[in-house]
Amino acid sequence: MARNLGFLLVIQALLLGLAAADWNILNQKKAKYGLQITLKNYCESWRMNVELHNIRDFDVVPEECVQYIGKYMTSTQYKVDSERTVDECTVYLSTSCGLKKDGTDAWIFDIDDTLLSTVPYYKKNGFGGKKLNSTCLEEWMQQGKAPALEHSLRLFNQLKGLGVQIILVSSRRECLRSATIDNLVDVGYHGWTSLILRGADDENKDIQKYKADVRKQLMSSGYRIWGILGDQWSSVEGLPTVKRTFKLPNPLYYVA
Amino acid sequence: MARNLGFLLVIQALLLGLAAADWNILNQKKAKYGLQITLKNYCESWRMNVELHNIRDFDVVPEECVQYIGKYMTSTQYKVDSERTVDECTVYLSTSCGLKKDGTDAWIFDIDDTLLSTVPYYKKNGFGGKKLNSTCLEEWMQQGKAPALEHSLRLFNQLKGLGVQIILVSSRRECLRSATIDNLVDVGYHGWTSLILRGADDENKDIQKYKADVRKQLMSSGYRIWGILGDQWSSVEGLPTVKRTFKLPNPLYYVA
Repeated sequence: MARNLGFLLVIQALLLGLAAADWNILNQKKAKYGLQITLKNYCESWRMNVELHNIRDFDVVPEECVQYIGKYMTSTQYKVDSERTVDECTVYLSTSCGLKKDGTDAWIFDIDDTLLSTVPYYKKNGFGGKKLNSTCLEEWMQQGKAPALEHSLRLFNQLKGLGVQIILVSSRRECLRSATIDNLVDVGYHGWTSLILRGADDENKDIQKYKADVRKQLMSSGYRIWGILGDQWSSVEGLPTVKRTFKLPNPLYYVA
Repeated sequence: MARNLGFLLVIQALLLGLAAADWNILNQKKAKYGLQITLKNYCESWRMNVELHNIRDFDVVPEECVQYIGKYMTSTQYKVDSERTVDECTVYLSTSCGLKKDGTDAWIFDIDDTLLSTVPYYKKNGFGGKKLNSTCLEEWMQQGKAPALEHSLRLFNQLKGLGVQIILVSSRRECLRSATIDNLVDVGYHGWTSLILRGADDENKDIQKYKADVRKQLMSSGYRIWGILGDQWSSVEGLPTVKRTFKLPNPLYYVA
């Protein structure tokens, strides 16, 4: 019985194209859980715990889940999950958010994997399974070919229509400013109030601290920030807080 | 073509046992998303956005997703997701958490759907699809028959072994104290330091405020709270913060 099960597991491993090393890790995990779990169960729980912010500071997607994560990031499910996040922003804007309409209402957006998708880059670079090469990623960003995330473009335009000041706060570096503007405009984003990128002074800070400092500055200059839409917990956590935050799914990478 | 699709959708609805009203809502959502999505896609995105804390303050699980949520809460996936959350607590305890071992190290646990499962109650009461009847739920709690969540029991015992003071902070009311103690002990929990339930003074507070006030009091009395394990965002959010928080999945209900 145990031997048959082992045989089936090996077949499953081969079908999934796993190296023996990864499979051993997974088997250890199975034994530890004391549950008969599939690789899909395992990878789904990894992804869920990333989104719950229980798994933090990961450098790479676990090797055995790269295929699963790649599939998710190019799936209808990823689109539907993201659409729902944006729908909740819209519900909030139309019900519980009391815009002042005096030019100080503001909304913060992340850029990568919020307004623009980096999925084409990660598709060519191992879907989060390889440690990030920031030089390569920045070269890709310089080309300005990142597609829009359509759901976010919809929210962006809705906010503009409401007269809300749109502030883009990104961990991209200043050297990417002109490529970023070109890319955003090319895919349909225009009419933002401010595009804040990381200057030399910010490069030694954690992204969370950098983004929190930006919020502090924006708030002290009079903006009422009604919401943030981002794909990383570091975009929405820390002080000062804003009234509501919305996190898009993103299991590809972690920004601290 | 459109008529054929409509026919297939109706068949799918019948198979899923949906009332026409629910199905209409779903169809509107489908049209809105502009995507061909299944009911599973839709309900999975609902669950994901609950866990991302984008969907808040819901009274009931959407009618069309009750079956899906019931299936999830009794699935291997729910167990694996929860196991992984607890595993991350263990990783944190063994790597980045510098226990002082002087009797002031502490850890906070929720009770319902963290230490004990209310799934048997919800199984008999529409799996989150009906508005909560707190009298019924409290009657069920008085019986003290809630089973342990095995992964949490493992963490509880590990913390005890490390000499960490275990503090249970629950939104259960004081009138449930003796039933709660009996239930906890019956299923294997013993050796906690403090069991904090909601007194008359706390009943007008939001649960998040009540739990934050408890943390404040614990910290000012000298406890170093290394972590919280809970199943609701209201158990881990708000000030004062603690070093790390861990959220178990729970799409059955929302506690503000």
